[in-house]
Amino acid sequence: MKEYKVKVLVLLKDGLFDPQGKVIEDIIKSKNINVENVRIGKLIVFNIKSNSKEEILETINKQLATLFANPVVEKFEIEIEELNRL
Amino acid sequence: MKEYKVKVLVLLKDGLFDPQGKVIEDIIKSKNINVENVRIGKLIVFNIKSNSKEEILETINKQLATLFANPVVEKFEIEIEELNRL
Repeated sequence: MKEYKVKVLVLLKDGLFDPQGKVIEDIIKSKNINVENVRIGKLIVFNIKSNSKEEILETINKQLATLFANPVVEKFEIEIEELNRL
Repeated sequence: MKEYKVKVLVLLKDGLFDPQGKVIEDIIKSKNINVENVRIGKLIVFNIKSNSKEEILETINKQLATLFANPVVEKFEIEIEELNRL
């Protein structure tokens, strides 16, 4: 078993209006910074012991996806990094 | 000018109790999944036109950091990816 750090990045699906993102976008643009498509989402970070990244992805997709995101309106992406510990 | 996709990942500082993370951790552990240190945070994603990643980091740190996070209790990390568009 190895230890991994996992980041789950949850956003509203593309095409759905994100009012909070729009507010932040307007504030950033008012500072003359050239941004587009600002979206605000949720972040879940954890450490997990597992045999492989593939096993982690399977665990998340089969058992945790609906805990992290509402599949009707949200999408998520997963970043996995192996931790080097003795 | 190039276009970049930026992700700002905001979490409570280490050592600060994250009650929402604790709730999620307990739910995950009840499924016999071996997780630790679950933290719930905020995600801000946007596209930005800039000359370099260094310029983006400077813009964020000088002008946007306090918009994205409360420096007293939160920390953030930044991921920048160059977009390939014609």
